[in-house]
Amino acid sequence: MKITIQREILVRSVQEVIKAISFKTTIPILTGIKFHVTEQGLTLTGSDADISIESFVPKEADGDENIMIEQTGSCVFQARYFYEIVKKLPDTQVQITISKQQNATIQSGKTEFNLKIWDAEEYPRLPEINESCSFYLSVELLKNIIRQTVYAVSTSENRPILTGVNWIFDKETLVCVGTNSHRLAQKIVLQSDPNIQIEVNPFNIVIPGKSLNELNKLLDGENEQVKVVITPQQILFQLKNLLFFSRLLEGNYPDTKKLIPKEMKTKLIVDVKAFHRAIDRASLLSKDEKSNIVKLEVNDSCTIFISSNAPEIGKVEEELSSEHFEGEELKISFSAKYMMDALKVMDDEKVEISFTGAMRPFLIKNISNDEILELVLPVRTY
Amino acid sequence: MKITIQREILVRSVQEVIKAISFKTTIPILTGIKFHVTEQGLTLTGSDADISIESFVPKEADGDENIMIEQTGSCVFQARYFYEIVKKLPDTQVQITISKQQNATIQSGKTEFNLKIWDAEEYPRLPEINESCSFYLSVELLKNIIRQTVYAVSTSENRPILTGVNWIFDKETLVCVGTNSHRLAQKIVLQSDPNIQIEVNPFNIVIPGKSLNELNKLLDGENEQVKVVITPQQILFQLKNLLFFSRLLEGNYPDTKKLIPKEMKTKLIVDVKAFHRAIDRASLLSKDEKSNIVKLEVNDSCTIFISSNAPEIGKVEEELSSEHFEGEELKISFSAKYMMDALKVMDDEKVEISFTGAMRPFLIKNISNDEILELVLPVRTY
Repeated sequence: MKITIQREILVRSVQEVIKAISFKTTIPILTGIKFHVTEQGLTLTGSDADISIESFVPKEADGDENIMIEQTGSCVFQARYFYEIVKKLPDTQVQITISKQQNATIQSGKTEFNLKIWDAEEYPRLPEINESCSFYLSVELLKNIIRQTVYAVSTSENRPILTGVNWIFDKETLVCVGTNSHRLAQKIVLQSDPNIQIEVNPFNIVIPGKSLNELNKLLDGENEQVKVVITPQQILFQLKNLLFFSRLLEGNYPDTKKLIPKEMKTKLIVDVKAFHRAIDRASLLSKDEKSNIVKLEVNDSCTIFISSNAPEIGKVEEELSSEHFEGEELKISFSAKYMMDALKVMDDEKVEISFTGAMRPFLIKNISNDEILELVLPVRTY
Repeated sequence: MKITIQREILVRSVQEVIKAISFKTTIPILTGIKFHVTEQGLTLTGSDADISIESFVPKEADGDENIMIEQTGSCVFQARYFYEIVKKLPDTQVQITISKQQNATIQSGKTEFNLKIWDAEEYPRLPEINESCSFYLSVELLKNIIRQTVYAVSTSENRPILTGVNWIFDKETLVCVGTNSHRLAQKIVLQSDPNIQIEVNPFNIVIPGKSLNELNKLLDGENEQVKVVITPQQILFQLKNLLFFSRLLEGNYPDTKKLIPKEMKTKLIVDVKAFHRAIDRASLLSKDEKSNIVKLEVNDSCTIFISSNAPEIGKVEEELSSEHFEGEELKISFSAKYMMDALKVMDDEKVEISFTGAMRPFLIKNISNDEILELVLPVRTY
């Protein structure tokens, strides 16, 4: 292997694949980045066994030469050092040469690094993907799905299945759900939505939340569409010159439809920003506690009272107007964090909050559509 | 106590005094901010016993009313909560009232906080400062003195005196020195420098490095001059509407004059940026080790070789030109971090490095003047 590559292009590809690498892994070679040079170009791979990212640098793009390939070949560099080194090399060009067994030379300007490498044969193979089930999403829609569901997943490994987001396709809608059993976020995409092109058999999969968060960081303006390929154990997101593989979670995801209340006793419409700021202030006194609980009280005068009490510090009372109120008077307590997380991902300026009683989960949704539905379980405080 | 104050002005003053507060203190009231309202305005105080900061908000400034004072008085708020609260209050005005024993009300818009307070009588008194020894420095010079000396102080409490910066005035020069015994930074200010106005008796004090770092954060463009007042145990830096007190370190500071070599055997002139970048790259392979050592080799061809070797990872070799070389050939090893720290604070684009042998401390200084002098001890590697 002997190539000369534009430093900036190399840095960008390394930045992409390094997102998959965990330096806490027990498999040493997975702390490395695999280089594979063919006549067509350079493929970089990073992986932590759950997530794998493959970035391809074509020999030429738009008539410009990205890489001069003198000799094809493969090797694995220690990712941590390699990334720091290429970022700081002095010249715009970098020459990489496998000089002898287990050694590569990186040369740029008057700087020469001589690095230990691993044999590429020892690097785990990426899963083989059978393309029988694939569809297309716009990057914008995919980013929204991730942002509006993944925040609600569990961060505890007590019930591993709840650390993932459930995607269910039933031929008419794609329903995406995240829940930690105390709150739930659901995003519905209709098959008729111009941002999705989906013509496949029904599926029901659970994608790790961590994978979706990492994928989100790679979704930028350069790509407009993402191809999604689903296999029994893996999901593949395919971007321009970039492949993102994630394992799927095994097990049965709870049936969340039953959790969503049908009837409602109290309905409020509030301004998202004003309501978020009021909850935020009311939660200031309880920020040290794991469960930062605020109380909400509403009566038929359309005034909402939000309050919180921390015996050692003091208490706070907020008053704000509801845009609309119908149904019964209500006193309810809930986690300020859960409420603020839910408000943050709403698209509309105003949202509708529907309650069915002080001890029943309540619903938050946009007033203009039913695409997003969020559910928070209240807390018993008296 | 009952006042109405502009929220932005209150936030800025709280931001200033909170820099002195440590939430790890064993004296609970020192986690508080003291409010003291007189007919003239509001004084806020924060302290961790070593550093105390006092910020004064005058009733009026430039014809604008900052505070409406209905009743004078004092109290102490829990700083952590108070700061978060005032930052997020909804209105431009904030009303603060001591409502009853150990309770204050903060009101802004339709938000009302009711907070526990401490009695201001229980707050420690600030040291009384006798003004017999005082002088003036420009803010720019003071910031340079801090930046060019404090980085070299010790971070270990093994020899507490070395955690401070030694300021010695001998009627002609102010010499400021920081050292951790492996490196040293010295800044000399002549009495004739227009940035200093000093007409006092000789003094020799040691100011905690931590205090100088905190002071540096408060030095902004609004002030042009700082008045410095020195007493046996305390130093006071006086800015517009702001007092910064620090205790001085007790004990004898080592006589560092003896450490500075007089003769020299090898002299180099290098470009600061190019040299810094070369050292930085050479240190990449050893960044995990506490002492990240690089080797420098120079011969009479004016070429400098910098290298580093980490058996598990690889090795690196850099080559760069010296602007000037005189004296003997040299091979020397030193801490890359110490060299880079020293280069970072130089004013000139080129610096002179003078060696007196592979095992003797070497000197770094600007080529245009002798104001800054930095010293690094080499490391034995063979």
